[in-house]
Formats: sequence, structure tokens, C-alpha cells
Amino acid sequence: MLIVMNPGATETDIWRVVETIESLGFKAHPMPGSNRTAIGLTGNQGAVDPAPFIELPGVAECVRVTKPYKLVGRDLKHDKSVIRVGEAEIGGDEFAMIAGVCAVESREQAMLTAEVVAEMGCKWFRGGAFKPRTSPYAFQGLAEEGLKILSDVRDEFGLRIVTEAVDEPALDLTEKYADVIQIGTRNMQNFSLLRRAGQARKPVLLKRGMSSTLEEFLLAAEYIMSEGNYQVILCERGVRTFGDHSRFTPDLSVIPAAQRLSHLPIIFDPSHSTGNRETVIPMARAAVAVGADGLLVDVHPYPERALCDGPQALLFDMFRDLVAQARAIAEIVKQHSDAHGAYSTVK
Amino acid sequence: MLIVMNPGATETDIWRVVETIESLGFKAHPMPGSNRTAIGLTGNQGAVDPAPFIELPGVAECVRVTKPYKLVGRDLKHDKSVIRVGEAEIGGDEFAMIAGVCAVESREQAMLTAEVVAEMGCKWFRGGAFKPRTSPYAFQGLAEEGLKILSDVRDEFGLRIVTEAVDEPALDLTEKYADVIQIGTRNMQNFSLLRRAGQARKPVLLKRGMSSTLEEFLLAAEYIMSEGNYQVILCERGVRTFGDHSRFTPDLSVIPAAQRLSHLPIIFDPSHSTGNRETVIPMARAAVAVGADGLLVDVHPYPERALCDGPQALLFDMFRDLVAQARAIAEIVKQHSDAHGAYSTVK
Amino acid sequence: MLIVMNPGATETDIWRVVETIESLGFKAHPMPGSNRTAIGLTGNQGAVDPAPFIELPGVAECVRVTKPYKLVGRDLKHDKSVIRVGEAEIGGDEFAMIAGVCAVESREQAMLTAEVVAEMGCKWFRGGAFKPRTSPYAFQGLAEEGLKILSDVRDEFGLRIVTEAVDEPALDLTEKYADVIQIGTRNMQNFSLLRRAGQARKPVLLKRGMSSTLEEFLLAAEYIMSEGNYQVILCERGVRTFGDHSRFTPDLSVIPAAQRLSHLPIIFDPSHSTGNRETVIPMARAAVAVGADGLLVDVHPYPERALCDGPQALLFDMFRDLVAQARAIAEIVKQHSDAHGAYSTVK
Amino acid sequence: MLIVMNPGATETDIWRVVETIESLGFKAHPMPGSNRTAIGLTGNQGAVDPAPFIELPGVAECVRVTKPYKLVGRDLKHDKSVIRVGEAEIGGDEFAMIAGVCAVESREQAMLTAEVVAEMGCKWFRGGAFKPRTSPYAFQGLAEEGLKILSDVRDEFGLRIVTEAVDEPALDLTEKYADVIQIGTRNMQNFSLLRRAGQARKPVLLKRGMSSTLEEFLLAAEYIMSEGNYQVILCERGVRTFGDHSRFTPDLSVIPAAQRLSHLPIIFDPSHSTGNRETVIPMARAAVAVGADGLLVDVHPYPERALCDGPQALLFDMFRDLVAQARAIAEIVKQHSDAHGAYSTVK
Repeated sequence: MLIVMNPGATETDIWRVVETIESLGFKAHPMPGSNRTAIGLTGNQGAVDPAPFIELPGVAECVRVTKPYKLVGRDLKHDKSVIRVGEAEIGGDEFAMIAGVCAVESREQAMLTAEVVAEMGCKWFRGGAFKPRTSPYAFQGLAEEGLKILSDVRDEFGLRIVTEAVDEPALDLTEKYADVIQIGTRNMQNFSLLRRAGQARKPVLLKRGMSSTLEEFLLAAEYIMSEGNYQVILCERGVRTFGDHSRFTPDLSVIPAAQRLSHLPIIFDPSHSTGNRETVIPMARAAVAVGADGLLVDVHPYPERALCDGPQALLFDMFRDLVAQARAIAEIVKQHSDAHGAYSTVK
Repeated sequence: MLIVMNPGATETDIWRVVETIESLGFKAHPMPGSNRTAIGLTGNQGAVDPAPFIELPGVAECVRVTKPYKLVGRDLKHDKSVIRVGEAEIGGDEFAMIAGVCAVESREQAMLTAEVVAEMGCKWFRGGAFKPRTSPYAFQGLAEEGLKILSDVRDEFGLRIVTEAVDEPALDLTEKYADVIQIGTRNMQNFSLLRRAGQARKPVLLKRGMSSTLEEFLLAAEYIMSEGNYQVILCERGVRTFGDHSRFTPDLSVIPAAQRLSHLPIIFDPSHSTGNRETVIPMARAAVAVGADGLLVDVHPYPERALCDGPQALLFDMFRDLVAQARAIAEIVKQHSDAHGAYSTVK
Repeated sequence: MLIVMNPGATETDIWRVVETIESLGFKAHPMPGSNRTAIGLTGNQGAVDPAPFIELPGVAECVRVTKPYKLVGRDLKHDKSVIRVGEAEIGGDEFAMIAGVCAVESREQAMLTAEVVAEMGCKWFRGGAFKPRTSPYAFQGLAEEGLKILSDVRDEFGLRIVTEAVDEPALDLTEKYADVIQIGTRNMQNFSLLRRAGQARKPVLLKRGMSSTLEEFLLAAEYIMSEGNYQVILCERGVRTFGDHSRFTPDLSVIPAAQRLSHLPIIFDPSHSTGNRETVIPMARAAVAVGADGLLVDVHPYPERALCDGPQALLFDMFRDLVAQARAIAEIVKQHSDAHGAYSTVK
Repeated sequence: MLIVMNPGATETDIWRVVETIESLGFKAHPMPGSNRTAIGLTGNQGAVDPAPFIELPGVAECVRVTKPYKLVGRDLKHDKSVIRVGEAEIGGDEFAMIAGVCAVESREQAMLTAEVVAEMGCKWFRGGAFKPRTSPYAFQGLAEEGLKILSDVRDEFGLRIVTEAVDEPALDLTEKYADVIQIGTRNMQNFSLLRRAGQARKPVLLKRGMSSTLEEFLLAAEYIMSEGNYQVILCERGVRTFGDHSRFTPDLSVIPAAQRLSHLPIIFDPSHSTGNRETVIPMARAAVAVGADGLLVDVHPYPERALCDGPQALLFDMFRDLVAQARAIAEIVKQHSDAHGAYSTVK
């Protein structure tokens, strides 16, 4: 159930509703919007009686949620969510370019890359310290040593750090060192890890499973939010199909579809979806044009020597060129969205 | 095999190679490029002896083709092919917007739509007179009456007509009335129809099969070209996946991949791939940004009354807005492509 | 609409309903069952008024059909359809083994294979005279010469001939020479060819499209039946997926699903689905066990020299072994089906 | 690398090779076969020098493994692996029927079901105490209470218990209470959980990811084995496709393909793949016929009241019927396999 407050409801009104929800043994999730606050109620089995709420001061209405998710949906929160870390943001006015290395391999490799990322005015750095690898015999990342290098990247360049946690011990460390915790495609339905991420006090970047439906994707985000962490960023990274011209088939149509159903920002990873440097730039441009809130891109100073996914990493000049193109296209999309809100994707 | 002529080879040199090929019982396919002409040889079983060609005047080299296709590939023709009908073109400098009705339902519906298409400065009109329908009991199109209406659209607005041929009798009529003959997704491997289209004297717009690999797609184009019709336009229209948020999953990554392998122009149909008006505009923008040579878009004066695929047809205002956005993004892609040819998609 | 006759309705009663349907400009499709006859009505746009029929002698009820197909469904005809040519049958008590060569390459190759097929007591021979090939440069079949060889196989061994028609001219010839006309997977939605097959006076074996849903498959059969040819055999041949251990992914679950919805028999092609001789026998056994009505199997006297799909052709000894196993398993399935009709697949 | 011992090699010879491997900092995995023992070496980066091994007593040869997996492959162990718990086995002569409840809901529900499973002579019971659910608000299982009920089922009926561990704390408990630890489809690439399962002293039943290739599936098993637990059972449970007549598309072709590459037993889950009781029996028969080593089947005393996946649970009578059919078909497959080993799937 969803309890919608009047525009003029006070903090005290909201607090009383939260208290009433909790006194009944349920969980309350207040979501402030630009006009009004709505409060999601979870933890119930079956329908909840609205009687205890409907007469409370400031309550406008009690709405039954018919979708399988409650907290990720636009019903609860009409305005788009913006994730902010310091001055960096995802889902706000500025297109978010998250760039960096697939795996942190050495201090030098990370620093060289971060320098270019910062020089281009980007605010986010990505880099893997724990790598989920298909083979047990492949390079698995530098672990805590990698996180320390990332931490130094932040200190040196002021970039905000996005890095993947592959399990609960990794999440503990990642929460300590990073700014945004990434959950990878193979863990999109690792429900224990999602719950743990929901208890973290850092935003979570959740990658879509490689054969996940949109509903399953949103329910995975709901797992995180149902634990009280509402700072979730969705990320499309390609799906499994019969196609063999791309490592995965990038599904850009999921971006406007997710934006219609959910208030969460959604970005795109052109590197892991295509697996091929030449296709990264055109697909990245396409994602900006479709209305994505950001990109997650692999760059490498010398990709031919990369320990992981070298063929998809952009060279520095390609990356500089990409940033310029992405900004120009993002500007056009924004102008349109401002002018034609009525039938824009993010209505 | 592929016989590459010297840049200075004369028409007579080329004609002599063609004659020699034909005298051996093979078929010759001369493809002029900006620097040199190459001549494709088909009709052979197994390898062809280069001896009769290598010493002919003007011949630079004889190249064995290792890919399964010969005529669609960049090996034979490095420069991009441009399809021209009067002043309208696809694959050239100007982004091609092919817009119109899914099915021609009446003179009024077609004329109202064409007026808007022409008013926006577009040069191509689409409209179906023969509709391939999943059910034998669904509306199958107005047939020749529809073609006559399309012909009147051309006379009235100067728009060039693209329309589908579903079988050989329809192709005979389409060839007579239309400017470009469309082969639909369900016929991408209707090899007899492809051969017949290869004998037509009009360009052919070939839609990708809904679970076709890129190689199968290019080989379908090769069927058309092997009969002597080199004016082929490829069209991505979505593929079958497990995804349920879009009617088909639009596969934009096939566009740069096709452009790398083939000199043929490739466009995108956002209407049939998404099946949903709201998603058409963002996906159309994305296709322009990825570098597609054009769009094939459904518009309808009153989609709620459409006999076929109403939910995907744009309203007139949405279409006007799309054209403006597409042109702005196409301009950015073109600037980039001109400046950074070295690693652009269309290198 | 569907007009169900009383068990005691006479031929005259049925004839009067048919006449009434046709006098209204519709098409009548009488389907005799073991207890009662039902008459399908097609050709209508929107709902049909039952008034003219309900009072006619022998009419039990008029039923509105809510499914998109009418003639293929169990609503119209509860009993399973059996396709018979002479003593050979598909869908009856005996499991149908249709075996032979992928492509007829020579008289010797066909005759050697047919001898083994006949020796094993099988009644059907398959062989392609027209081959739909992905590349225009691949072997396309012996055409009419191949059909003549197949005709001789029938004369020599008494086997009934199943062969593919790839277009309308091929269908004309196939109808003349063969016993069952096959429509291939790439033509499952070649609606003109389906209509032409619906006018043929021979049974039609319809292969499922490689990414066709069950509903699309049944509607393709409906195209054939709506033209008056009710002798249709469905055939599963594998679907497109991300899987790379099999040429296509054989989808056996479609067999019981089709049998629940439709009275038509359904068989399985283990050769084209797997593309791999070693997997043919286990998958063929599986299809028998799932309750398929027959198999369509490639055999070759010397597969290493085959002009088409050699790696999937069984050697003669493998084929003999397969027949023995298939019969033993078919016997078990039949015993079960007789004993437990209540929840058997074909209820 | 793989070190193959002579047939006459002694325990001491084997022990010396293991010791030499470990002295070099690698891990040794001795795999006894019917004729000879082979010893897998893991933990290396790049190629290993065979010099230290080739002259040791009893060593026949050192083989470089070119496949990405080492321990799951037939190169290391030609004979099929048999997993045994007491008298129950999987991969041996007897077809393994693992039946029970999807989720343990109550003592009564589990006991009623177990009684029927035991009465039919089956030796394995399945039941979920930890349920991975797409929605955070769905029933998640009885946890340790469920494991205690399962333990009582073992005491009461002598059935061996298979149950899923969804994370590491659940695995700790499962290892204590159960006989076989199941890893679910959503965790097939939860590499930390796989490593933990590899340290367990109980066999692991590993379900294929819903869009996993065969190679990824085998590499997931390799993760488990690389930690020293060689008792792994593979399980096919359907893959994601465009098909909508089955919950997932059961891919039986992966069974013979896995058996060719790997010595591990492989079973099939007809319940979760089809999601539909009516299709479970035919698909289960098909899996037996294709050569699967066992089945994993849901049964329920009153499925209309099930808390999880009721529509796919067999009624008791259906289950009894299935066991009879499965045994009859398994007998035929076994006879064939014994007689025609040369080209059987399990050669």
C-alpha cells in the first residue's frame, strides 16, 4: 500500500503515519517528491486495511499497489530520482559519464586513465577490484589493494569511485572505500547480496541480468530499496540473443521503458555489451540519444596488454572524442525533453 | 573471385574483363568506386583460375573472396553505396527519413499523412498495399487500389514511394507503381522472391529477418545482387528475444557491424520494432546517433482507427518533433564522421 | 463461428448448414468427428449472427471462437486428425518414421537409402529436390530431375514421398510428383505459398519457423486450412537461441503444447535441429517419448560426400538402431496414453 | 596440465606426483578411473613445464589441456562419475528419481509427499528450505525449520535429501542437515558461493543458468571442483527464449552434449522448466529417453494451496504414473547403450 500525503502535510504528519505503520509491524518508506510526499508500506502479507491511516492528519489517500514492485515505481514517486555524491550526480541535469578501467591492474594504469577522465571534466571513475570471471583460472582482480588505488584516484583527481562488490565480504570493503557499489549482471538475482546492498549507506549501481525481463530487473532494485537504501542506479549492459556480431545484444529499448515505470535513473554500458572498441562509440552515442542518464565506459592506456576485456577498452583519443559527441547529443535530448514534456520518455 | 582494376583502367579494359568472364560461363558484376572499379565474378563452383584475367590490360589483381558473400562486401566496393531516385537518396550526405502509413487504408488517410511528410521536407513516403498478416482473417491491404493511391501521392507531393511486395505477382505490380520495392522480415529468406527482386529495375529495401544473423542478412542481399540489381538498402526492424517490454528487441548494434562489412546503406524501423508510439521517438533518435542512414517510420492521422498496427503510429505533432530531433543529431554524427574518419563506424 | 451438429445429424442436415453459410457469402469447413460433425465458418469480418443457423435441423449449438485460429483448434475438432496416403499414416496408431536424404543428389544415393528405409518397414521417404539455401552460391537441388528420382523410389519400394516446395512453380511440380508437400521453416510465414498449399490436393507438412511462437505456427497452418486443405502435419525443427552446442535448440515442449490446442499431428526433425549426427539418436528418442507423432530423419550412404548437411545424416547402421529404439519407446508411450487418457498429453 | 599415470601405477607413485605438484605451489586433483588414474594440475598461470613430472615412476604422459576447463572434462577422467550417498546414486546403473516438494511448507506436507516418494522405491527427496524469489515480498521458505523437517524425512523414510543453499550462511546449514547441496539457476555464476560449495564435504547439484552456454555451465562446475569437491551433478532446467508456451524452453540437447564433454552426471528438472503440470510428464519421459541420469520433480499433496509454484507440481497419481513410465524408458535406453556403445551418447 501507498499512503499519499497532502501537499501541505507537515513533518509531524508524516512522522505520525510512519509511526502508525511501524506500530502495526510493517516497514515505512517515506519518499519526498516535489509536490507531495508518499509513504510506501512493505512487510505485509496480503492486503492492508487503510482504516488506521485514512483519518490521520495530512493523509490525502491510501492507494493499493497492483504492480509487483512498490518502491521503484512512479506511483510512489513521480519525480525522477537523482543520485548525488558531493558535486557528482546521476539522473540530474548533467549527463553522467562514468569512465575508467575494467579492472584495476596497477597504480600506473589507473592513474594514467583517471588523469584523462578528469581532464575531460568527468566526475566519476570506474574500476574493478573484484572481477567475477567465468573461469576459476582467470585474473580475479587486486581486491583490497585495488580499492586502495581507487581511493587514491579519488584523492588525486577528485573523481567519485564506482566499483563492483561480488560477495558480502567484498561489499564490506567496497562500502568502506568506494562512493558507489556496483552489483554485476551475474549477481542481479543474488538476493542475499541485494539485501546486503540495501543495508549499505552508499548508492548502488545495479546491472541488468543478461536474460532478465524488465520486471525482474525492477524487482531486483526493489530488494535493495526494501531494506531502506533508496539510492539505486539501473544499468543496461546487453542481453543474450542468437546474434553473433556483438558480445551481447545491447537493448536500448529497455531505457525508455524503465523510465516510464520507475523513477530511478538508468545508464548504459557500451563496453561490456558490445565487447568491441569500434562499436562502443556509436552505441554510446545511441544511448545518449535514447535518453539514458549516463554511460559506464572502459578506457585503457594500452588495451593490448589489458588483463581483462582489452578489446572493448577505448584508447584515450577515442574517449575524448566520445565525451564531446555525448555532450552534444545530450544537449539536444535535453532541449527536446524540456520543450515537449507531454510525450517525452520521462513524462 | 574479385578482379580489381587499376585506377587508370578504361571502359574498354573493364568491358574486356566482363566479356572474358561471361565467355567462361560466369556472371560479371562491375562495381565502380571512387578510385577504381572492381568486378565480382559469380556462378562458379569452387575456385576460379585467375590466369585468363591477370594479364588483361588494366587488371591490378585477382583476389579470392573468403567470405561467403562477394557482392555486398567492402572488399569488392570500398565506398559506401548511395541509392538515388530523382533527388531523393539513401546512404548519401542527407539523412533519409522515409515516413508514411503502415497500410494504405484510404485516399484521405494517405494524402493527409503525405502532406505532413512533404511539409517537413522529407522525400520518401512509405505505405503498404500488400500486408503480410499473421492471421488469414486480418486486413490484407488494398492491393492494386492501394498502389494507385501511392502513385497519386507521388504525383501530388513529389514524394518517392516505398512499398512492400509479398510475392511475385505483387512484385510485378510494385515494380510498376513504386520507386523502391520493400521485402519484409518474413520474406528475408524467401529466396525465389529475392531472386525476382534481383531482376527488378528498382531499388530494393530488405528488412532483416526477426531471428537472422548478420551473415544471413548479408547473404539475403547477396541473392538480390547476384541477379544484377545492386541497389539494395538494408533495414533493421528488431529481433526476437525473451524481452517483453518491446514488441521486438531493436538491435542497433547491427548497424555499425553491417557498415563495417558492407557498402550497402542501412536504415532502422523504430515503429515495427517497438510496437509502441512512446518508444518510437527515443529509439529513432538512437538510430540516428548510432549512424543509421535513415529511418522508416509509421505516422497516422487517427491511429486509434488504424486497420493495422495503430499503437505504433506517430501523431502528426510527434512526427514533426522527431524530424527536427533526427536532423540535429544527424548533423552531430556527420561532423564527427568527417573529422574522425580514422575510427568512425563508416571507415 | 463454429456450428456444432447433433450426434444424429444427417448428411442432409450438414449439407443444409453448409449451403446456408455459403449463401451468406462465407466459407464452410465441415469437420467430421467420431461423435459429431462441427462446421467452421470463415470469411466473416466481425461477429456472425447465429440466427440463420440455430433453428436448422440437426444443429446443436453455435459457438463463437475466441482464439485467433478456428480450423486448427480442438474446439472445432476434438479428435486427433490422421493423415493417410494409401497404407501410410501420420497421427494414427503407428508411429510415423519419415526417413531419407536431405537432398536428392543422384539416383544411386536415393535408391541405396530408400532400400534401407523400406527394409526397416518404414512407409515414408523424404528427399529434397528444391533446397532453400542461405547462400545463392550453394547447391540448390536437382529440381524436376530430383522429383523424378523420388517418383521412382515410390515405384520401386512402395514408399510415400515427402518433399519440399520452395515457391509456387516448385509447388506445382511437387503436387504432381510427391505424396506430401513440405513447407520449410523459412517459408512458414510466406503467406502466398501457404494459400497455394491450401489449394493443393495433397497433404502439407509445415515446419515451424525458427523463431515462431506456437500461435504463429498454428495460424500458419490456419492459412492452409482456410483454403480448404485440412491435411496438415506440423513439424518442430528447433528454434534460435543463444545456445551454441546445437545448430538450433530443439524445443520438444512445443509438441505437447500443440497437441493440447490442435487436432493436427506433430512430428520432429532431429537432424536439422541438432545439425550433428551424434545428437540425432538421443533427441529422436526424446521426441518419441514426449509423444510426437513421427520423426523426419536424414540418412545418407556416405555422408562425408553429401552436398548438403552431411554432418547430420545418420549412417545406415545408426538408422537401423534408431528405428528399433523409437518403436520400443513409442510402444511404452502408447500403453500409457491408452491407460491414462485422463491426464495424457492428448486429452 | 594433466598427468596421466600408467595402469600399473601404485598409490605411492600417485602420491609422489601429488607431492611434486604441491611443492611447486600448485594444486593436485587425482581422479581415479577404471583403467588408470589421471592427476589434474591447477593454480598455474600460463603453461607448466612437464619436466619435473615426466620422469617420475608411473607417469605415462603429461598432456596440455586446451579446453578452458580441466577437471570437469573427459580428458582428465574418461569414465562417467557416479555420485553416491549410502545406497542412493546418481550417474550409476539406476536412473535417479529425485522427487519432493518445491518448498517445504509444513511437516505434514513434506511427510505426505515423502511417503509416496518412498513407496515408489525412489531414494532421493527434494525440498526447499531457502527459496530464491524474484520478489522480496514472496514466501522465502522456512529456513532452518525446513531443514529440520527434511532431516526428519530422511530419518522416517530413509530418503536422501537434496536442498538448495542460496548463500553462504544457508550453505553452512545445508551442509549440516542435507545430503546434496543444490545451487540454483540464479546462482550459477555466484562464484563465491561456488567456491564455498567446493569446500563442502557433500555433493553439489548445480543448475544451469537460464541463459548460460554449455561452456559457462561446465566452468561453473569447474569452480566447485577446483576447490577439491569432485562430487558435482549438473542439472538442466530450461533456458530463456521468445517462446511463450512453456515457462522456460527445456533444452534437452544440452544433455548429450554435456555427456560428450564431461564425466559428470546430468539430470533434468521438468517442473521448473515447463511450469505446467500437464507438460511435466511428457518432458520427463523425453529426458529419460535422451539419456539423462535422473529427474528432479515437484510433487504436492494439494498443489492448489501451494505457497510456491503450485501449477507445476504433480498430483500423487501422476507421479506414480511418471515413475513407471520413466523406468520403462530408462530400461530401453540402457539396453541400447550397453549394446551400441560405439556411437551411444555416453561413449
